[in-house]
Amino acid sequence: MICPVPDSGSLVSLGLVPAGPVSFLDGVPLVDHHCHSVVADDLDRTAFEALLTEGHGPAPGTSAFDSALGFSVRRWCSPVLGLPPHAPAEEYLERRSELGSPAVTRAMLRAAGAGTLLVDHGFAVSGLLDLDALTTTAGVGVGEVVRLEAVAEHVADAGVDAAGYGEAVRSEVARRTAPDRTPLVVACKTVLAYRAGLDVDPHRPEPAEVTAAADGWLARRARDGEPLRDPVLLRHGLWAGLDTGLPLQLHTGFGDPDEDLHRADPALLAGLARLVEPLGVPLMLLHTYPFHRQAAWMAQVFSGVYVDVSLAVPYVGPRSTSVIAEMLELAPFAKVLYASDAYGLPELHLLGALRFRAALGGLLEHLCATDEISPADAERVATMIARDNARRIYPRMPA
Amino acid sequence: MICPVPDSGSLVSLGLVPAGPVSFLDGVPLVDHHCHSVVADDLDRTAFEALLTEGHGPAPGTSAFDSALGFSVRRWCSPVLGLPPHAPAEEYLERRSELGSPAVTRAMLRAAGAGTLLVDHGFAVSGLLDLDALTTTAGVGVGEVVRLEAVAEHVADAGVDAAGYGEAVRSEVARRTAPDRTPLVVACKTVLAYRAGLDVDPHRPEPAEVTAAADGWLARRARDGEPLRDPVLLRHGLWAGLDTGLPLQLHTGFGDPDEDLHRADPALLAGLARLVEPLGVPLMLLHTYPFHRQAAWMAQVFSGVYVDVSLAVPYVGPRSTSVIAEMLELAPFAKVLYASDAYGLPELHLLGALRFRAALGGLLEHLCATDEISPADAERVATMIARDNARRIYPRMPA
Amino acid sequence: MICPVPDSGSLVSLGLVPAGPVSFLDGVPLVDHHCHSVVADDLDRTAFEALLTEGHGPAPGTSAFDSALGFSVRRWCSPVLGLPPHAPAEEYLERRSELGSPAVTRAMLRAAGAGTLLVDHGFAVSGLLDLDALTTTAGVGVGEVVRLEAVAEHVADAGVDAAGYGEAVRSEVARRTAPDRTPLVVACKTVLAYRAGLDVDPHRPEPAEVTAAADGWLARRARDGEPLRDPVLLRHGLWAGLDTGLPLQLHTGFGDPDEDLHRADPALLAGLARLVEPLGVPLMLLHTYPFHRQAAWMAQVFSGVYVDVSLAVPYVGPRSTSVIAEMLELAPFAKVLYASDAYGLPELHLLGALRFRAALGGLLEHLCATDEISPADAERVATMIARDNARRIYPRMPA
Repeated sequence: MICPVPDSGSLVSLGLVPAGPVSFLDGVPLVDHHCHSVVADDLDRTAFEALLTEGHGPAPGTSAFDSALGFSVRRWCSPVLGLPPHAPAEEYLERRSELGSPAVTRAMLRAAGAGTLLVDHGFAVSGLLDLDALTTTAGVGVGEVVRLEAVAEHVADAGVDAAGYGEAVRSEVARRTAPDRTPLVVACKTVLAYRAGLDVDPHRPEPAEVTAAADGWLARRARDGEPLRDPVLLRHGLWAGLDTGLPLQLHTGFGDPDEDLHRADPALLAGLARLVEPLGVPLMLLHTYPFHRQAAWMAQVFSGVYVDVSLAVPYVGPRSTSVIAEMLELAPFAKVLYASDAYGLPELHLLGALRFRAALGGLLEHLCATDEISPADAERVATMIARDNARRIYPRMPA
Repeated sequence: MICPVPDSGSLVSLGLVPAGPVSFLDGVPLVDHHCHSVVADDLDRTAFEALLTEGHGPAPGTSAFDSALGFSVRRWCSPVLGLPPHAPAEEYLERRSELGSPAVTRAMLRAAGAGTLLVDHGFAVSGLLDLDALTTTAGVGVGEVVRLEAVAEHVADAGVDAAGYGEAVRSEVARRTAPDRTPLVVACKTVLAYRAGLDVDPHRPEPAEVTAAADGWLARRARDGEPLRDPVLLRHGLWAGLDTGLPLQLHTGFGDPDEDLHRADPALLAGLARLVEPLGVPLMLLHTYPFHRQAAWMAQVFSGVYVDVSLAVPYVGPRSTSVIAEMLELAPFAKVLYASDAYGLPELHLLGALRFRAALGGLLEHLCATDEISPADAERVATMIARDNARRIYPRMPA
Repeated sequence: MICPVPDSGSLVSLGLVPAGPVSFLDGVPLVDHHCHSVVADDLDRTAFEALLTEGHGPAPGTSAFDSALGFSVRRWCSPVLGLPPHAPAEEYLERRSELGSPAVTRAMLRAAGAGTLLVDHGFAVSGLLDLDALTTTAGVGVGEVVRLEAVAEHVADAGVDAAGYGEAVRSEVARRTAPDRTPLVVACKTVLAYRAGLDVDPHRPEPAEVTAAADGWLARRARDGEPLRDPVLLRHGLWAGLDTGLPLQLHTGFGDPDEDLHRADPALLAGLARLVEPLGVPLMLLHTYPFHRQAAWMAQVFSGVYVDVSLAVPYVGPRSTSVIAEMLELAPFAKVLYASDAYGLPELHLLGALRFRAALGGLLEHLCATDEISPADAERVATMIARDNARRIYPRMPA
């Protein structure tokens, strides 16, 4: 059973979960180890649909509701708003407007039943709830993930010369990840996959290389605002993150059209994993789909590599069972975490949690029913993946 | 129910479809947006088996009938010839010879129940029915897809100098795609994946580059008949196709041994998709398997990208349900089309249609049975993918 | 039914196979066309767990038993040791120690029910049973697979100059694959994927290139023991293997952390396959997962290419059905072989065989139940893949 929505009765009574209890995940508060905040204001249909896709919105003459994700919203989020399942998109959005964004957000986040959210709040945050507001609305502990490229761009924009750039980034990353920050900072994150692709030399660059690269980029950024895409400087930032000793989250796989998907294959990180293995810093491969089998191999062969199938889980709807099953072919069960990668819509927080519970719970039930695993082990595995692996791996965790 | 075969009773009575009606695709005449014509004459066993594989024929000591496709022919095509399901290959071929190619072709094409065929008739067409004969035999509307590399090679062979090559190709492509052609020309197609791989610079080449490349290739072609493989000239042809404004079909994924499969990954086309997005010309990613999840991502994030799982659908037999389910994880339902990519054997037209109907229909029935989608939405989605998406995207469509 | 364990009753009575008979693989002695020997001595928990993963052992604070493979051992191997299914890891290992390694090995290998083992005994063989002992323990015929890189390194270490290196390797490969060797040598194998990646120029290098490359490598190896990683010399060894005319086994896909997985995609071997096709030497693509669909395409389009899903089959546990089903989408059934790739633990021999029988048997039963294939054909296909394809392809096979 998913955590009940306090103000609208249990989701079971709303038809939100199947009649049969998904017992192995009953009452386990998830740790969502990678997500984003949600839009504060009400959304019109165009704005809502733009958040139902990783593209720039649906193609002309089509609707983002006509997708695995869109049908999931109509099926599973409608009851949270007091509508029957499969409410038409128009009715859903009308009801959403009537209730207002704060009430909808509160209902969805609480229905999701996450116990802890680790939030990347360094990307397109204009219009999103800030982390204090998110904490209050969700009613759970919130930790922050520091996005390394945002720090580097901040350092550049604050004014630094090429000779001082390398050290300035290192000290700013150290400052932003200090243990006394509020909210608690739990990890660093890199979007190297977007900015240069994962197929770059993984070594820490030499100081002279950093200075030379900074010399070019700082000038270009001052002139025309060029985002950080220089591979040397991206690697410098990545290693500044590793130097903190906090787990490093890496975008891999499925994302928006700024990336070249084939350069986001997590298997391209084998070289980095070999370098980081002796340091003991965990590498958290985010999303990974459709390369989740490759990511699972990484988690099996490198002791410091961990994986999730965030983003895909809410997006692929009822197919999330197959995706999770494919990941668990090779990934050791102690190396797999839950994440939603929800961004903007609180519906994505709910769907991430709901699909994950149904998929992992259903898979474990099936393994019990076919006598492949004992019920006691199934319960232990469910709790590991839903919560305990994250608690073990992240040295800091909000209360 | 699949469209009844007029002269031999409904396929249901032949055991061609499961007892339970696949209601969501009942009576929907498919648009097969990419296929080829079929062999006119009778085929002996060697010739038939060579058309049951994308290779050059089965390995010594083996039979192409021992495959997912071969067992599908024996199971599902035998009843169309009046044989019991699972007829041995020898019996099947004997019966096929008795009936003669025209009768077999007519029965298979009509049993397929496509309402419209968009045909690439620019490849290995010797021995195939011409498009008039195909139209008459199938009893449905036929549109033509112009293969850009064939046009370029025709221009080269007709005699042109390097300085005139670029413009000659552009005007010949324009001429062959004029709106008054008979049969109606509906799209252009490129086999860049075979000729150079999809990992080429996607930009339109400059005229001087085209002239320089043509200078080399025209000489080599005159000397030894070299096919068009020069990346600059391939890109020139591709952009000549885009200039027509007609949808551009691109071979991706699964094909014959002339290609390097890893260079046919449709995700390699992200750069081209970014360039074409502002032009509004649809990019139709054909086949896509085993990269159909990557292709689905392309369809999600680029508004002008559309996808199918042709070729794989007939080949993989009963596994087509899984393949289509994988594609529909991320592909918006308004961006997915039906195609068979059938070549040579009318059996492939039938199996493409039959497997597609069973797979998509079965998947939608399952989603209804698990209350993931309403029956009304399921019917709408079935019709979109089977027919309406193609009708919306292709500006020209034969009656 | 799997071959009964002589000294402990049939595995059925131990609950080792489902109640319903997996009839299509009943009593078929498998040919395991690629495996390794097993550890001779008793293993403590650390050593045992290190052999339950392709990594260097489980991450700190985790257990390799918490994986698809680990749960498979507890479920399916426990009964062979007289324990109930799902015995805790500690109990399993205690019981294993009580019985002693020879008895455990004998029970597992015999329960596996392989009729023939083709063994790569050129890698990390210290501590493993030699092939005579393996033959006696397993009670079946054993053939040997010669690892080409080991031969080249032996030649280098035995003392040769650069000018003589090329011919010395060729004649040593010829000597080690002579038809009168004991045990019988059945194939060559290359680990090019580990040493340089499969994306190298596939052509046979010229003698002068070999001499130049040997000049560098022999010096480096004499100085610091550098393994053979030079692409020219790897290709020279590979072609020396092809010159024997014996099937050439190639590591592809899933392996240990020394490899870059994305450079082990078997589709990268298309260029080699085109060169080898006219020679008629079989190319055996080992493992292939997670690129097994790509490998299946290779098997379809190149007449000399054969495939398996070894290593993955025991590792992925009950998911082996899906993996085999994915491979059989495009792979002709006469081009697919069984292998376990078991290394070190006799449990892996048992699990490879057990999962393979259950997966292929279950898949064929499902195809019969849905009337996609006739029972007679299903039985024929089962026997082809389990045994007869290997017997047809390998010109030498131990009795």
